[in-house]
Amino acid sequence: MILFGKVAILGTGLLGGSLALALKGSKMCGRIGMWSRSEATRRACAEKFRGCKVCAEISEAVKDADLIVLSSTVLSIPEVAKEAAKSAKQGAIATDVGSTKELIAKKCSEIFSKKGVAFVPSHPMAGLEKSGVQFAKKDLFLNAACFVCPSENKSATKAVAQMWENLGMRVFFKTPKEHDKIAAKISHAPQCLSSALALLADGDLDTFKNFAGNGFKDTTRIAKSDPAMWRDILLSNPKNISKNLDLIAKKLSGLSAAIKASDKKYIEKFLSRARETRLNLEK
Amino acid sequence: MILFGKVAILGTGLLGGSLALALKGSKMCGRIGMWSRSEATRRACAEKFRGCKVCAEISEAVKDADLIVLSSTVLSIPEVAKEAAKSAKQGAIATDVGSTKELIAKKCSEIFSKKGVAFVPSHPMAGLEKSGVQFAKKDLFLNAACFVCPSENKSATKAVAQMWENLGMRVFFKTPKEHDKIAAKISHAPQCLSSALALLADGDLDTFKNFAGNGFKDTTRIAKSDPAMWRDILLSNPKNISKNLDLIAKKLSGLSAAIKASDKKYIEKFLSRARETRLNLEK
Repeated sequence: MILFGKVAILGTGLLGGSLALALKGSKMCGRIGMWSRSEATRRACAEKFRGCKVCAEISEAVKDADLIVLSSTVLSIPEVAKEAAKSAKQGAIATDVGSTKELIAKKCSEIFSKKGVAFVPSHPMAGLEKSGVQFAKKDLFLNAACFVCPSENKSATKAVAQMWENLGMRVFFKTPKEHDKIAAKISHAPQCLSSALALLADGDLDTFKNFAGNGFKDTTRIAKSDPAMWRDILLSNPKNISKNLDLIAKKLSGLSAAIKASDKKYIEKFLSRARETRLNLEK
Repeated sequence: MILFGKVAILGTGLLGGSLALALKGSKMCGRIGMWSRSEATRRACAEKFRGCKVCAEISEAVKDADLIVLSSTVLSIPEVAKEAAKSAKQGAIATDVGSTKELIAKKCSEIFSKKGVAFVPSHPMAGLEKSGVQFAKKDLFLNAACFVCPSENKSATKAVAQMWENLGMRVFFKTPKEHDKIAAKISHAPQCLSSALALLADGDLDTFKNFAGNGFKDTTRIAKSDPAMWRDILLSNPKNISKNLDLIAKKLSGLSAAIKASDKKYIEKFLSRARETRLNLEK
């Protein structure tokens, strides 16, 4: 079923690129216009997304679009929205794929409402530790969770949610505030922790190369993620992330003190509870 | 080549069990005697390790053994050593597979030297997040690192190192003190961190079940490890582990403060350096 005559994808990284591939395979939209800031990326896109129109100008990609998807990095989304709003048609719908929602929802709703465009914030939780259009794949969204923040425009909200569902995602409706609280806990703070742990190997690389096993490697896998992307995410959800980092730092200091004091019971409770929680996640 | 006429494996968890399977396949030893404290485990062993003698008494397993391998949990190793020493033959060699070395090396060297048995501490770095003889497999040691702490008895040291090498391990010689410093950094502190992160989901399980992706899951995989085993490891290497935990807690607090202060440069440097370090590990 055609949901949108034309979709404009603004930003062609892992998520934007995967969305283009998934939409092409889905018959949910007629045409796809794509925009990337970088000429090299546009060339790669023209190669990879045959049948999509790859544009050097936002206005060209957005022209006549029924759905505008903002899929550039978090802090650049409002800028791209401003530019997109200039060429957006009245009655169009806009959404985004950013990892934080409060800041984006506030700014973009304002920008688009002036042009009669309904903005429905989304966050498809389908990242990898790899970035860039070269890793895009059409089944990236399958079975992953997707947050949608309902806008006042109910039919626009429904259409955006429908698109993600048709791509195989499990859609959850949350306010931007609720989203940012959840995302800090399940994704942003773990990212910071993984990076902090990776830094243990800084200046001692040979030791880690020789001796570190899969435990260390798995625990630090996501530290390989794009720093610029994550910098922006951390900057746009500061209170929630800091709160969780302070909490974990406190837990570590508590465990450290217990270890120094040979507090067998504390240590065992800490580890047992962690294990039980982690095992329950898989039930 | 036969290295040892008889090997006694005292403690039949993942490591002890895997060692029995690997030795059986290697033709490095003539006979294998195994001991487990638990009757249920002994029954499972009798089933799994056909050709090995599964004993209810340490003395029986140790009798006539040329190599005694202490493969019970870290804090129980000295106790088992005491019992084993009573029946050990003069000129035998003993080793262990414990995750910490200073405490074990000191206690066990003392215990065995009185009986004319050379003790050569080992640490094959081949754990999994799963424990127990049911997960034992003969290729567990392949390509993993193994620490051997040289004893005064050079031929005993050589024989123990040779055994691990023959099983496909990369052997490194370190003093117990050096070992414990390294292990705290590459293994013990990461274990604590993974558990601390898993505790974020404690009391908020539904949220994590719905929304947590592979990032959180991989980062907390090792939190599923056996709490009793790890409690003993933490208790037997307290100073080195605490030092690293305090260091990571400090890094997290620093990052948290930078996020609160919107310190873009600090955040980017933190994440970039972590990424670079992690990528270099794979080079």
